[in-house]
Amino acid sequence: MTDTSSSTRTRLALLRAELKARKLTGLLVPRQDEFQGEYVAAYAERLKWLTGFGGSWGLAIVTLKKAAIFVDGRYTIQVRGQVDTKLITPQHLIDEPPTAWIAKNLKKGDHLGFDPWLVTADQAKRFREACEGVGAAFVPVDSNPIDVIWKDQPARPAATLSTQPTQFAGRTAADKIKDMQKAIAGHDAVVLTQPDSVAWLFNLRGFDVPFTPVVPAYAILHAKGKAELFVSPEKLTEEVKTHLKKIAFTRKPSDIEASLKALGKAKARVLIDGAWTPERIREVLAKSKATVATGTDPATFPKARKNAVEQEGARTAQRRDGVAITRFIRWLEAEAPKGSLTELDAAAMLREFREATGELKDLSFETIPAAGAHAASPHYHADAQSNAPLKMNQIFLVDSGAQYIDGTTDITRTVIVGEPTSEMRDRFTRVLKGMINLSRIRFPKGTCGSQLDVLARAALWNAGLDFDHGTGHGVGSYLSVHEGPARINKADRTPLEPGMVLSNEPGFYKQGEYGIRIENLFMVHEAKEIPGGERKMLGFETLTLCPIDRRLIDTSLMLPDEVKWLNDYHARVLKEIGDFLEGGELDWLKKACAPI
Amino acid sequence: MTDTSSSTRTRLALLRAELKARKLTGLLVPRQDEFQGEYVAAYAERLKWLTGFGGSWGLAIVTLKKAAIFVDGRYTIQVRGQVDTKLITPQHLIDEPPTAWIAKNLKKGDHLGFDPWLVTADQAKRFREACEGVGAAFVPVDSNPIDVIWKDQPARPAATLSTQPTQFAGRTAADKIKDMQKAIAGHDAVVLTQPDSVAWLFNLRGFDVPFTPVVPAYAILHAKGKAELFVSPEKLTEEVKTHLKKIAFTRKPSDIEASLKALGKAKARVLIDGAWTPERIREVLAKSKATVATGTDPATFPKARKNAVEQEGARTAQRRDGVAITRFIRWLEAEAPKGSLTELDAAAMLREFREATGELKDLSFETIPAAGAHAASPHYHADAQSNAPLKMNQIFLVDSGAQYIDGTTDITRTVIVGEPTSEMRDRFTRVLKGMINLSRIRFPKGTCGSQLDVLARAALWNAGLDFDHGTGHGVGSYLSVHEGPARINKADRTPLEPGMVLSNEPGFYKQGEYGIRIENLFMVHEAKEIPGGERKMLGFETLTLCPIDRRLIDTSLMLPDEVKWLNDYHARVLKEIGDFLEGGELDWLKKACAPI
Repeated sequence: MTDTSSSTRTRLALLRAELKARKLTGLLVPRQDEFQGEYVAAYAERLKWLTGFGGSWGLAIVTLKKAAIFVDGRYTIQVRGQVDTKLITPQHLIDEPPTAWIAKNLKKGDHLGFDPWLVTADQAKRFREACEGVGAAFVPVDSNPIDVIWKDQPARPAATLSTQPTQFAGRTAADKIKDMQKAIAGHDAVVLTQPDSVAWLFNLRGFDVPFTPVVPAYAILHAKGKAELFVSPEKLTEEVKTHLKKIAFTRKPSDIEASLKALGKAKARVLIDGAWTPERIREVLAKSKATVATGTDPATFPKARKNAVEQEGARTAQRRDGVAITRFIRWLEAEAPKGSLTELDAAAMLREFREATGELKDLSFETIPAAGAHAASPHYHADAQSNAPLKMNQIFLVDSGAQYIDGTTDITRTVIVGEPTSEMRDRFTRVLKGMINLSRIRFPKGTCGSQLDVLARAALWNAGLDFDHGTGHGVGSYLSVHEGPARINKADRTPLEPGMVLSNEPGFYKQGEYGIRIENLFMVHEAKEIPGGERKMLGFETLTLCPIDRRLIDTSLMLPDEVKWLNDYHARVLKEIGDFLEGGELDWLKKACAPI
Repeated sequence: MTDTSSSTRTRLALLRAELKARKLTGLLVPRQDEFQGEYVAAYAERLKWLTGFGGSWGLAIVTLKKAAIFVDGRYTIQVRGQVDTKLITPQHLIDEPPTAWIAKNLKKGDHLGFDPWLVTADQAKRFREACEGVGAAFVPVDSNPIDVIWKDQPARPAATLSTQPTQFAGRTAADKIKDMQKAIAGHDAVVLTQPDSVAWLFNLRGFDVPFTPVVPAYAILHAKGKAELFVSPEKLTEEVKTHLKKIAFTRKPSDIEASLKALGKAKARVLIDGAWTPERIREVLAKSKATVATGTDPATFPKARKNAVEQEGARTAQRRDGVAITRFIRWLEAEAPKGSLTELDAAAMLREFREATGELKDLSFETIPAAGAHAASPHYHADAQSNAPLKMNQIFLVDSGAQYIDGTTDITRTVIVGEPTSEMRDRFTRVLKGMINLSRIRFPKGTCGSQLDVLARAALWNAGLDFDHGTGHGVGSYLSVHEGPARINKADRTPLEPGMVLSNEPGFYKQGEYGIRIENLFMVHEAKEIPGGERKMLGFETLTLCPIDRRLIDTSLMLPDEVKWLNDYHARVLKEIGDFLEGGELDWLKKACAPI
């Protein structure tokens, strides 16, 4: 704690001196890097370096006299453990938003600086309005002040890119580019700034950040001719250069401003997605007389709607991952009651089972191995400090995922070590009913996640219970495990479309005691027509294959159709996963998949 | 047809001459009157007089050379039967919206006139932008051109107002006004233009339009002191004058502009609801230097959240209405198989049963008595032409409602005359399951209708079926049977709050054959806590009491909890309605309410 304090104090002092030298009253310090992703490389952990806060989303505002850090509900406790609150005041993002803080703490004539590569066009608009509301200015800086004072800032990662073969991507980059040129009709160009859009469009993968093989590069796709890809030359292998030759000019990242200005000179009509595009890109386009149109990144929907090859890849990857996690759970069931396992042991062993597939590229996020009360925190992080033993008669929840070249996985299983209480069985069964009822629903075209979310919650709601996270998120194809645009939660209004892969992960959390979550991935598909049915319906094809702990089910709460779904699911798991197991593992699977 | 044609031709010619005299290129002719309601008085049926179209929503644009009428999906067939399409082109409101028509058919220098009392501020903004987009002007007229050329235009209705006693309203008008003065803190006044808001706030009822006892008057509520009510003096009885004396100044409708200007002179900050307030009111306020703030009509939510007295009134009214409709259904079951009944006979007899309660003020909408294939049209209108006999082995659907001083009702029952087919039973049971599952759900605060709507549809969706209307609408307390703000449908985002009364009316429609709808009203309440429940939940209290036709239920499709709900409901119907019946009627009710 003393260490954090003293380094925070020193760093704030250095920053304030730098701000004074630049005639700035303050600086916005977001957690995001220039690609707005969930994971950032070490060099871009500016917020953590300055404040100590290590969550996946946060924003600080440091003025010459004050400092505040804004975090959402996931991090209100964590922030107080990591940040010296005497020096930096934690604020709740929703209850005390940064724009309100600006209105209260800035005054006429103040200059609040920001790095226009790290702040999106939409964010900049809101902050600018907040500053102007009190007569202050919101000023883009030419270089990031933190980078100047951060003496041992890590270098930018230099991992080379790889190509994603058509046998897994399902379509060549050239064909995707042609499709997108049609889709942006009416515009002369689109600037792509989301690294998963760039990865998807060009059939490339990158390795600068953990878990997420996206390509840290911007691109300009022109309505005609070759695209421009702005990427560090050291990332380009000969193979990648050959792959790109006919479809894109490769330019240095710093060349983008010249290309944007060229669009302006040509009076081009340029599409950007204000929610994701750096303010700097919007500003350069606007100042150089391009017509800036804002809209959804045109890669968003085609990327989310997996094509037939990606769909088949997803099935294969899930089966492979299902074998690994099934073996892990069998091992866990045998080892955990012996009493010597810890959360980190379990996570390491799960990784070994995945490595044993011979196909593991990476995990898709850091495994959450949560024993007992730890499982009550949906985003629990296990490390040397928190590492807990798996104890008898406690729940163990493990949420994990993997990256394979043919698909990204994400699965949660909750198991009992020893004997569950009847309350645990009640709660587990209600969560399971929700997972099943969402899996089983058929729905007309145009239906969105917020209309279906209740199906995952009704069994809990009817018992006076609920869970405080979304029911499902989109998942990429050997890309980000959290991929837009569709979600299943209380508010999302994106229509679900065939080929979208989403998670289905209701839960229940009892603080200080235990937590439950059951997560399968499923894919939207056109449901088989039913005799007498009049309308085409969409439905979900469950992808994840791994037994669900039967010991935690209270069958008296299950309806006949729910029992049938579970027994059918387990029969399928046995058939598809059983082929890859033998001996004791296969015997165990047969028991784990027996009808209830 | 010839008649309609020739009168339309004459009227269009008269209108065009009037437009020329006023130097206008065209005129907007909405169906709405100055209160934007579903029902309008005869004098305000300008659209019908001009075009022949009699639907509840429509909009014509007549220029010197062209004429178009815009209707929504409910009326695309009806409009072609009622309007001479050689003279006036029907357009689909969503596919070919009026703003697009304006962009295509108006040109620079054109002047499109509109009556600023009939067009809301929000609508005017959209039309103005569409006109200005092509260099045309959107011009308010001082007097409505139709009123000038419509020689035998009916007089404005002069029905006197009545007071709504506190024993039914639950709160005095003075108290409601005090509450609202608090609620509009920060504003100097609010202009109320919705006739149900005015009726609710002042505890008054009016009788100018059928079915809906709203008060056709605008009001200005000041942050301090007495309100102003703009109402024709002939509507004011001595009782009403006494009732209003301490709470409002009564002024003539034409005095409102002077009052608005006075607000401007005082530089008042005035709240209006742009979605409902006539453009004229916004314009006068803006021109006279008032600060116009737009927001939701502040009566909307308190009116929708029925207070304890209104809730008790709703229960009493529903019980009374339940007796009438139960007696009707018993009568129908005996008479219909004899073969001589028609739809209009049935509707008349239903009215007689309601009259027999001695409390009927009015119906709450025109009864929909739909036999056989007519039931496939959710908005079927029975008249001398369409009137059909009730035949054996056909479905009869009756959707009806009543106005009582203590509550407004709305109920649909679908019965079989003779024997149903197995398909009818399958469909009826799926609709019933939806109605039950929505009735049973508990949900956390903040939940809105679009999150719950799926519960009423899942049993249909899973069979490849659906229905093309909302599942439920809000209902007033001796006010409008369609009352905002909350609805249950695929899109509504208004959180449900305790005291709101809504309908629960899933259906199924097979064109040319039959239709099914089962409708109960229910009220949002705080659900009784359950042992082990951790969170407070809301739920629905079913208000409507009348048997559901057991002959149409396929019990093999019903889950145990659904069966229990239905048997419990029927037991409650027997208990609460049975008290008011005797002899053969009571015997019938006992059978109709027997457990399945």
